[in-house]
Amino acid sequence: MSSEAKSSKQACDKFVAVNELAKRRGFFWSSFEIYGGSGGFVTYGPLGSRLKQNIEARLRDLMVKKVGIYEMESSVIAPGKIFEASGHVDHFKEPMVECQKCHIRFRADHLLEEKGISSKDAEKMTLEDVKAEIQRHEIVCPDCKGAFGEPTRYLTMFQTTIGPYSGAVGYGRPEAAQNIFVEFNRLFAISRERLPFGAIQIGHALRNEISPRQGLIRLREFTIADLEFFFDPEEPNCEYISEVADEVLPIVLAETRQNDQETPTLLSVREALDKKIIRCEWQAFFMAQAKRLLLSLGVPMENQRFIEKLPWEKAHYSSQSFDQEVLVDRWGWTEVSGHAYRTDFDLSCHMKASGIDMTVYKEYPNPVETEELVAKPILSKLGPVYKGEAAKAAAAIAKVPAKEVQDALAKDGYITVEGYKVTKDQVEVCMQKTTIRGKRYIPHVVEPSFGCDRLFYVALEYAYRQKDDRVVLSFPRSIAPIQIGVYPLMGKDGMDTKAKEVQRLLACEGFMTDYDEAGSIGRRYARADEAGVQLGITIDYDTLTDGTVTIRDRDSWQQVRTPINDLPKLLHKYFECKANFTDLGSLIKS
Amino acid sequence: MSSEAKSSKQACDKFVAVNELAKRRGFFWSSFEIYGGSGGFVTYGPLGSRLKQNIEARLRDLMVKKVGIYEMESSVIAPGKIFEASGHVDHFKEPMVECQKCHIRFRADHLLEEKGISSKDAEKMTLEDVKAEIQRHEIVCPDCKGAFGEPTRYLTMFQTTIGPYSGAVGYGRPEAAQNIFVEFNRLFAISRERLPFGAIQIGHALRNEISPRQGLIRLREFTIADLEFFFDPEEPNCEYISEVADEVLPIVLAETRQNDQETPTLLSVREALDKKIIRCEWQAFFMAQAKRLLLSLGVPMENQRFIEKLPWEKAHYSSQSFDQEVLVDRWGWTEVSGHAYRTDFDLSCHMKASGIDMTVYKEYPNPVETEELVAKPILSKLGPVYKGEAAKAAAAIAKVPAKEVQDALAKDGYITVEGYKVTKDQVEVCMQKTTIRGKRYIPHVVEPSFGCDRLFYVALEYAYRQKDDRVVLSFPRSIAPIQIGVYPLMGKDGMDTKAKEVQRLLACEGFMTDYDEAGSIGRRYARADEAGVQLGITIDYDTLTDGTVTIRDRDSWQQVRTPINDLPKLLHKYFECKANFTDLGSLIKS
Repeated sequence: MSSEAKSSKQACDKFVAVNELAKRRGFFWSSFEIYGGSGGFVTYGPLGSRLKQNIEARLRDLMVKKVGIYEMESSVIAPGKIFEASGHVDHFKEPMVECQKCHIRFRADHLLEEKGISSKDAEKMTLEDVKAEIQRHEIVCPDCKGAFGEPTRYLTMFQTTIGPYSGAVGYGRPEAAQNIFVEFNRLFAISRERLPFGAIQIGHALRNEISPRQGLIRLREFTIADLEFFFDPEEPNCEYISEVADEVLPIVLAETRQNDQETPTLLSVREALDKKIIRCEWQAFFMAQAKRLLLSLGVPMENQRFIEKLPWEKAHYSSQSFDQEVLVDRWGWTEVSGHAYRTDFDLSCHMKASGIDMTVYKEYPNPVETEELVAKPILSKLGPVYKGEAAKAAAAIAKVPAKEVQDALAKDGYITVEGYKVTKDQVEVCMQKTTIRGKRYIPHVVEPSFGCDRLFYVALEYAYRQKDDRVVLSFPRSIAPIQIGVYPLMGKDGMDTKAKEVQRLLACEGFMTDYDEAGSIGRRYARADEAGVQLGITIDYDTLTDGTVTIRDRDSWQQVRTPINDLPKLLHKYFECKANFTDLGSLIKS
Repeated sequence: MSSEAKSSKQACDKFVAVNELAKRRGFFWSSFEIYGGSGGFVTYGPLGSRLKQNIEARLRDLMVKKVGIYEMESSVIAPGKIFEASGHVDHFKEPMVECQKCHIRFRADHLLEEKGISSKDAEKMTLEDVKAEIQRHEIVCPDCKGAFGEPTRYLTMFQTTIGPYSGAVGYGRPEAAQNIFVEFNRLFAISRERLPFGAIQIGHALRNEISPRQGLIRLREFTIADLEFFFDPEEPNCEYISEVADEVLPIVLAETRQNDQETPTLLSVREALDKKIIRCEWQAFFMAQAKRLLLSLGVPMENQRFIEKLPWEKAHYSSQSFDQEVLVDRWGWTEVSGHAYRTDFDLSCHMKASGIDMTVYKEYPNPVETEELVAKPILSKLGPVYKGEAAKAAAAIAKVPAKEVQDALAKDGYITVEGYKVTKDQVEVCMQKTTIRGKRYIPHVVEPSFGCDRLFYVALEYAYRQKDDRVVLSFPRSIAPIQIGVYPLMGKDGMDTKAKEVQRLLACEGFMTDYDEAGSIGRRYARADEAGVQLGITIDYDTLTDGTVTIRDRDSWQQVRTPINDLPKLLHKYFECKANFTDLGSLIKS
């Protein structure tokens, strides 16, 4: 596509339309506009913060309420030690180049990406390679065409100081996982020392991007939902696996990708496990939940896929990784969650760095009796020969594998160790029984990790429809930011008072409501459709005499008539998805 | 109290008991313990994050769902400009001293407080005064008895850099209000340019305290709920005032405090407004809502009070301030929310610093006709006299107030201005009519601001009871972190399977549940009481034959028997406070 055609496509694509609508109606916008803005920060407005909370609530429903995953909330700022131990201080860096003319700085991997070099490949390059590639492709400053200087590595964490001493370095967390790992011992105690268990943290995180330019897709401050699931690798079975066994996952296999293909293979969870495409049941379970989450946000299965990462694409901590991607209009297939089997990597790092034991003791159901060949020096025999050095001779013998001692004695009748000649009568080689009652081990971890701002963007784009000449945000009813709009047909003759009463009634029932009396009723319906208000309740002259109202459906524009008294019960059923719209009253033929 | 008696009291006070329980059961604990900890950061565990969310949901219910306050979510990091404009960079500082011997740093105002100088007084002191007071009271390092050096001012904001350029200073927000002020124009557009409206932001904020030492009461990272309510100062009426008019507020009046008394005066909202003790209806409304919030968290009215701030205690932006305080065991009366009438201070600051107009246009219901005396130079008469300088002469006349011109002409027949002698016939003095259709003004702001971690601590301490020999957390049912525990009498004979089925049923109904089969049923009840689990449902042998279960109340330990099929409906009613415990089934006599 020519760059002109591309920019013309961009001018009218959904990304532009959704962002414009989002700003105008208060879903989200770039923060700090009055100060000229600051890239990578957004503000969620009234509709947006509600939608975002609803999406996070869906995640909690799936993981916390139904599966019993713990939730926790920790701080965005953390001491430097934690990110030294986790490897972030060393590895959380991007190659950066600065234009020698205008001194604007760019992510080198993004510049290379435009020349067809994948970001993942660029990430692995040495700075020399980056420099060579920039020269080879004759890449210059996109802003002023100036030449670039030497590439450097730029730490993409926000750095600060904790407390009044300048040495106390702190960072803004780039994810929410490390908070969970460092609190493992505490969480394990809370679980009364039983595995498996998981903990999820949904909160803000910070990545000090060089030049974020993709709206909600790449932010400096964003919301992440990291779930760390701890289990015994010898007992990897997921107790809920039967509930997802038939869920079909569209997976682009590593094998397919190596043949330069992107066709997903449709596999049920059961098949994916049987064929060892997903190696861990818990990982498969969370992938199925992730698919269900996206379905519940309005993304059909054909627009979802899982990418099996190639060995060199995986993070250093991961033994098996999948990215969940959703197709969006401007950016194509876009990652919304990552699924990594992190093994014992993180707990091991923190154990090593902190010196605190983070192993778990496991008692065997039946103690294990083992027999082992041992070589026991006989001090009473060594003493007379080696005198004061007898203990040293004994220690020397103890270091040699018993089998070796046995063989030497059988062959030569003696063995010489560290200069000591030890004969058959000075050492006893025999089988010894030991009872092992259990063992200590480091739990393994499977991590699903969701980018909540991306989930938000996806939900908004997938809700976006045009019907006749208007925009309708057709959110699934479980995430509609406003559930019920209440409108007096006209703001007079007591209809306004009645409408406010109805709104109050529904607000007290826990519904998210809105009241609007400005302009014609048609105009108000149009405004409500554009904000994704699920249902509209209109109070008219009949309401004042017979106590009934009309309820209007945002998507079908159908209307039903119902008594006010029945509203609480009916609407609860409807929003719990136990009733359809047409169950709400008698249909009005239009 | 002697320091020994004090420390002995401290050893067994509720603060210690609550913190110990909180850590053991996973409500909250000091973060990063494996790395030796870092003061002022806490982690909320499974029970805590649930309780905290429930408290925040109460606040949303009161403000967002019922009153229609907008909610928004912005970033914790913000560009330096914002906090320069708001005055934080200049004023958000604490006096600090460093021990010359051990080099530990302390907040000077806290050291002075221990000598009876109020923190507010200490905050106003110059550094010279601080130094003099330290010398006068012979204050030395509490740790090593070393002498202190010169006091300095320490900026208690976390500072960082945004993006790859070192000049781009950013700060962690010390509150959530500025995010709202800087987005005022956007929010005003979303409200379709109508006032009044309010916006609340509940989110993390950061204060880089020198040495935080009061658990949840003073944190470096905490959750704040700032609500900014914008209104026309000429239309200050609150539409909901009648709903709170009879709510009684215990207010310690400024007058009382100046007489060294602390007795609160009990005033209804109506009385407080009539007596002009609270000068703004919206402020009174939010104070009433704040009182109701604390009631709903379990704090009775007698343990709540509002402190009217003395003129010199108020923040620089506030024209009238009240602190809401709650009595807690260790710390006495402790602030949980602040209520400030901020006038147009903040919007004015940001208008000035950004150069962006943040005024609001108000059309008068009836255009105002005004008459004004004007002096109009007559160019056709000035021309012949002053030729090329006629325009200058006219401009000179225009600068003089018309009344002055009129008087001079009446007295002398001429007036000399900037060297031009202008006579009666060269200027016309007359009344001129103007129609003024409206005006622009800066909205006023009332701000209630809640410390969510303090609300959390208060809710936990007030729930803490001892009954017989056990601890019971008697949370109000609307905030109980776990609503329903499900227990098989024994983990066998199908009771465990049935119990898991019941738990699943209730989880799918949206309840927060827990399943426990470890240990005797008595032991499980005790564990549940200590975690504040509201109801316990036990599955026994009878359940398997007749499908009924027992439900146990955490506080009364009463039990009722109910069919499983009725549980969803009954429990929804119970948790919506439309039914009492004894409505849940037939009481079992114990």
